[in-house]
Amino acid sequence: MDNQYIEEAYKEGFTVRFAVKKRLFSEQSEFQKVEIVESTHHGKMLFNDGAAMVSERDEAIYHEMIAHVPLLVHPNPQKVLVIGGGDGGTAREVLRHDSVKECVMVEIDSSVVEGSREFIPKTSCVFTNPRLRLTIGDGVAFMAETKEKFDVILVDSTDPVGPAQPLFGPEFYGNVFRCLNDNGIVVAQGETPFYEPEAQRSLVGIMGKFFAVVRPYNFTNMTYPGGLWSFIFASKGLDPIRDVRVGAEQKLGDFFYYNPDIHRASFSLPTFMRKNLSGLLRDK
Amino acid sequence: MDNQYIEEAYKEGFTVRFAVKKRLFSEQSEFQKVEIVESTHHGKMLFNDGAAMVSERDEAIYHEMIAHVPLLVHPNPQKVLVIGGGDGGTAREVLRHDSVKECVMVEIDSSVVEGSREFIPKTSCVFTNPRLRLTIGDGVAFMAETKEKFDVILVDSTDPVGPAQPLFGPEFYGNVFRCLNDNGIVVAQGETPFYEPEAQRSLVGIMGKFFAVVRPYNFTNMTYPGGLWSFIFASKGLDPIRDVRVGAEQKLGDFFYYNPDIHRASFSLPTFMRKNLSGLLRDK
Repeated sequence: MDNQYIEEAYKEGFTVRFAVKKRLFSEQSEFQKVEIVESTHHGKMLFNDGAAMVSERDEAIYHEMIAHVPLLVHPNPQKVLVIGGGDGGTAREVLRHDSVKECVMVEIDSSVVEGSREFIPKTSCVFTNPRLRLTIGDGVAFMAETKEKFDVILVDSTDPVGPAQPLFGPEFYGNVFRCLNDNGIVVAQGETPFYEPEAQRSLVGIMGKFFAVVRPYNFTNMTYPGGLWSFIFASKGLDPIRDVRVGAEQKLGDFFYYNPDIHRASFSLPTFMRKNLSGLLRDK
Repeated sequence: MDNQYIEEAYKEGFTVRFAVKKRLFSEQSEFQKVEIVESTHHGKMLFNDGAAMVSERDEAIYHEMIAHVPLLVHPNPQKVLVIGGGDGGTAREVLRHDSVKECVMVEIDSSVVEGSREFIPKTSCVFTNPRLRLTIGDGVAFMAETKEKFDVILVDSTDPVGPAQPLFGPEFYGNVFRCLNDNGIVVAQGETPFYEPEAQRSLVGIMGKFFAVVRPYNFTNMTYPGGLWSFIFASKGLDPIRDVRVGAEQKLGDFFYYNPDIHRASFSLPTFMRKNLSGLLRDK
C-alpha cells in the first residue's frame, strides 16, 4: 500500500482503497492495529487490522440500523448494553432514546476509544453523555460474570477473527439470553451475506438455540466489502415488524438512512440469503 | 494497475480491485475500451472504460431486478425492447417470460457483444434464442426513428458519460413514451444514490415529465461502487407494487436474488435518497 491510499484487502481477491489526505493515528494495541486517517471523500475513517470500521460519510447507516430497529420494537427500553462499538456511534444512537436511563458499553480495546475520542468527534461525542457508562474490558468475560439485566443488548463487534471471535459463539449467547429481561432483544453485527454465508449461518443457528424469534435484516453501506451487510435480530418474543412502535421514530429527530419503510423492508431477504439460512429462521 | 488486478478507479477517491487470473479480451472500440478478464473469485468480468459492468458471480442480481420487476407488473408483456445490455444478461431474463414473443435489443458497441459471445456464455447464451432480435446501432437514434410499439422498455445503459450520455436526456424519454403501449413500463439503470445523487435526481425529474408513475427501486450488488444501486421504474399508470401479478414468478423457476418480498421491499428508499428526490416521486 502506498501512502496515498488506505486499503482493505478482503479475502476472495477483492480490495477496496480509499484516498487519504492525512494519516492521523496508528497504534498497535494488545489486540489489533488501530488506524485513523482523514480520507479525501469519506471523512475520517477507522480501520482495525486493515478492515474498515467507520467512515464519517456513512457511519450513520450502520449505527442507526443497529440501534433504532430494536429500540423502536422494545416497548420501553431503559437499560441497554453495547458490546464493542468503541468509536461511540452505536451508543450515540441508543442515547437519542429518552427512555434509556443507562447505556453500558464494554469495549475491549482502549486504543479504539482513545483514537476515536481524539480524531472522530462525530461518533465519540457520546463519551461526554452522563447516561453512558464506559468499561474497558472483555465483553465475553463481562457477559459471563455480570449480574445486571438489560432490555436490549447490541453486539457491535468486528469480524469473527481475532478478539471478536468468541462473540460469535454459543457460550456468549447463553449469557446474553440470561442477562436479558423478559421482553429482551439482542441485535448482533451479522457479517456480509455475499462473502460470509457460513459465518452468517453459524451465528443465526447459535442465536436460534436460545431465542424464540431470530430474524436477520440488511442494510447497504459504502465502506464494507460487498456493500450489503446484515444484523441478526433475536428476541424472547417481540417481533421486529409486528411490534414496532408506529410513529415513535418521529420523536428522535432526523435520520440519514432509517425510516419506518426501511425498517420493514430491511427484513426482506434476497433469495440466495434465504436459501443459505433455510431451516434456521424463527418467527414466534 | 499491475497485471494481477483489474480495478475501477471511481471518482471521489474510491477504488475497487479484483484479482485477475487471466486477461481474456481487450479492444478499443469506436466507443470505449472493452475488457474481459477471468477474476480469481468473481468469475468472468466485463469492464467498459474501466467501469465494472458484469461479473459472473453477481450479474444475476442486476439482470433479475431490471427485468422481472416490470415484467411481473405488466399484465401481458409481449414485446420488449432492451437498449444497451450487450452482454446479454438482461435479454436472458426477459426471455424467461413465455408471454414475450419478441425481445428487441439495440446495442451500440459490437465489441461488447462479440467479447461477451466469446468469453461470457453465462449471459451471452441468449444470443441463440430465436425470440431475440439483435441490432447493433445507436439506441438514441433507434428510439427517435422507430415506428414499433413495445410493452416494456429496459434502458440497460452504462453511466451518463461517453456513449450513454443521451440515454439520460429528455428527448430520449419523449421517444420512449411515444413507443410504449398504453400499459407501458420503462425501467432505466438509475445510478448509485450514494455517489450520483444529482444524476439520479435529474433522471427521475426527466422521466416524471412524461410518466404518471415514477418510482425508484434499489438493489445491492458486489461489484458496482458503493454496493447500493438504483433502477427507475416509470409507467403510464401501472403501479409497481399494487399491480404485481401475485404468484406469477413461480412459473419462472429459480432466482438468485429476486422474490416477491424483495420486489416490494426494493421500493422502500433510505431517508437520504427520499430527501434527494423530494418533490419528484410520482404515484398515480
